[in-house]
Amino acid sequence: MVEPRPAVRLRPNVAAQPLRWGAPWIWADQLVLDRRTRAIPAGSLVELQDAERRPLGLAAFNPGSKIAARMLDADPAAAVDRGWFGARLRRALALREALYEAPFYRLVHAEADGFPGVVVDRFGDAAAIQPNAAWAEVLLDEMAAALREATGVSTVVKNGSGRARALEGLAEETLVLSGALAGPVEVPMNGAVYLADLTGGQKTGLFYDQRPNHAFAARLARGRAMLDVFAHVGGFALAGLAAGARSALAVDGSAAALELAEGGARASGVADRFATRRGDAFDVMAALAAEGARFGLVVCDPPAFAPNKAAVEAGLRAYERTARLAAALVEPDGFLVLCSCSHAADLTRFREASLRGVGRAGRSAVLLHTGFAGPDHPAHPFLAESAYLKALFLRLGA
Amino acid sequence: MVEPRPAVRLRPNVAAQPLRWGAPWIWADQLVLDRRTRAIPAGSLVELQDAERRPLGLAAFNPGSKIAARMLDADPAAAVDRGWFGARLRRALALREALYEAPFYRLVHAEADGFPGVVVDRFGDAAAIQPNAAWAEVLLDEMAAALREATGVSTVVKNGSGRARALEGLAEETLVLSGALAGPVEVPMNGAVYLADLTGGQKTGLFYDQRPNHAFAARLARGRAMLDVFAHVGGFALAGLAAGARSALAVDGSAAALELAEGGARASGVADRFATRRGDAFDVMAALAAEGARFGLVVCDPPAFAPNKAAVEAGLRAYERTARLAAALVEPDGFLVLCSCSHAADLTRFREASLRGVGRAGRSAVLLHTGFAGPDHPAHPFLAESAYLKALFLRLGA
Repeated sequence: MVEPRPAVRLRPNVAAQPLRWGAPWIWADQLVLDRRTRAIPAGSLVELQDAERRPLGLAAFNPGSKIAARMLDADPAAAVDRGWFGARLRRALALREALYEAPFYRLVHAEADGFPGVVVDRFGDAAAIQPNAAWAEVLLDEMAAALREATGVSTVVKNGSGRARALEGLAEETLVLSGALAGPVEVPMNGAVYLADLTGGQKTGLFYDQRPNHAFAARLARGRAMLDVFAHVGGFALAGLAAGARSALAVDGSAAALELAEGGARASGVADRFATRRGDAFDVMAALAAEGARFGLVVCDPPAFAPNKAAVEAGLRAYERTARLAAALVEPDGFLVLCSCSHAADLTRFREASLRGVGRAGRSAVLLHTGFAGPDHPAHPFLAESAYLKALFLRLGA
Repeated sequence: MVEPRPAVRLRPNVAAQPLRWGAPWIWADQLVLDRRTRAIPAGSLVELQDAERRPLGLAAFNPGSKIAARMLDADPAAAVDRGWFGARLRRALALREALYEAPFYRLVHAEADGFPGVVVDRFGDAAAIQPNAAWAEVLLDEMAAALREATGVSTVVKNGSGRARALEGLAEETLVLSGALAGPVEVPMNGAVYLADLTGGQKTGLFYDQRPNHAFAARLARGRAMLDVFAHVGGFALAGLAAGARSALAVDGSAAALELAEGGARASGVADRFATRRGDAFDVMAALAAEGARFGLVVCDPPAFAPNKAAVEAGLRAYERTARLAAALVEPDGFLVLCSCSHAADLTRFREASLRGVGRAGRSAVLLHTGFAGPDHPAHPFLAESAYLKALFLRLGA
């Protein structure tokens, strides 16, 4: 039995059909928000109804978020308990087990895995949950218990950092919920070993989304000198070295990230070909150009320059500048990899800005490959347009 | 010394700047086409000039084609001889040798490799040239000689089939230019062996462009029963079987293609798990559904349903229908791969049509991966928008 749930209703002019077809989000301005509904606590489970009070399903409600309701279940009376979490986790797990040999992957990618606003990354015997929607914060203990049961992980971390939580009115908080962490975790990927600090927050964690792009760049790296700009914990550089790059120089502004990259290079057995330089990426690229340094492969994986619509134009200028500075460092016939993790800059505009930057460096280019986030980051069909991660693989001319 | 070349001029209102930046094509309505220029034989090399008669470079001219001129060289006096071909071929070869272990790939992908309108596929010791622009037809012998020199191949085939040649006013003609072919060629790819009939034309040749998509599907195929619709010579099916698919059924309308697929299955050592069914793909899918057949992985790689702008709406309906019929054949939690090789249907519209078809089959889906043509099919930066090959990898629900 489930306790009676409050009802929340669509406004009369809002079409219910997309929700019946699987649309995952209901915006605040699509709902009747009166004194009663505004008083429903953030994270409550509600029965979503169309304007004629016909049930549409079970939703997670947050009157303080622009995404005021998120569809959880087509059955408005579904019990969201350990069994419910377990069934969804097992389905998510089956996909990852079909895709990967070893238990290192994004296990839950939010809406596409039936966990709106929730991300779970698995690192072997440990997992990190990001409850980026209010309902998941409320039900976190139940979810963590189901996660331990479904996967057998012993250590579960709550990673409560990042922009998304603020939009839901949630505070930053990162802590170990169960088990223990003795320092950074070793993560095998693409033939290299990375170090991920699961409690150090975004700056020193690990992003699985770039895995196929690391792999593609590694193919191009064999026998070449490689420059990895915005290197973070060495995602591209270590995969390239493991595949036979002659050398790799990793550039990042964070000393903590570069320290983990160095530890990863040692764990991967490639430390003798690996070097780091700490500093502002633009400054370092300009300095390298002035030194006459050239590389057979240059990778730039910057933070989101266009995180939202207001920032798109400035963001595209930053991508163009990145491309211009990076292209100048590429040997004749060498390779350039340019990444964007900006939702708001779509593939076409990102590609245009990148090619413009390459052209302004006086270099010709052809596009070898366009990569996105790996398949452990599935896209919900109603959100597929918003693929945030793009990687362009270019071969430059003389 | 180069003989004096005729000059062809841009119309006064046509901007020359894109051509200086690398735009590869000049449309007939952008050129001054008078009695003199119309009399220049198709395939001639001309000096392209801006409206003020300043030279823009060397172009291949065809007054009978919509693409009336194609940029060949920034130097209007460049000698297009064996040395010129050789330099471009060696540069194209260096890229493929960086990408692949074995000499089986698209060696020349037209504009992006500096050979406007020309495609060369390499099959070990043999190569097939598609001279799909008039200039390449004129210079074919020189190009073939340079190809033998640069790569060491002994057998060179002219493949003069396909739609593109008609647009240039070229007749169909396929013949062996040098060396000899003793039946179909064995092509190792993704752990399987394919048979390619280089003189049998499009229906029985081999397409390298799907290689990374074959590889991604093969990852999903392990332990599953697989259905490969529009199977051609077994591209997806044989890669899936080599990766451990439980079984594969290949459906195609061409008996010749299925015979090559069966030969490939024997050469790959997977014939005991491979079956074929000849027939119209839509009829066979409907029949399989009626029989209650279900598969863990279904792949549809149809011919271009939307080959040009006029055919887009009908083409999108055909893609939707394909998706609907195919989705009905996928097991709960199984995978569906939908491909389009239509220039005119862009990724967004193809994805929408596909997801609509899946929804009409009553199935939910998430998008795992979007694949394009492999990196031996580089895109020219001015033509990057027109990426023709798209592959959507979906996981369906219950």
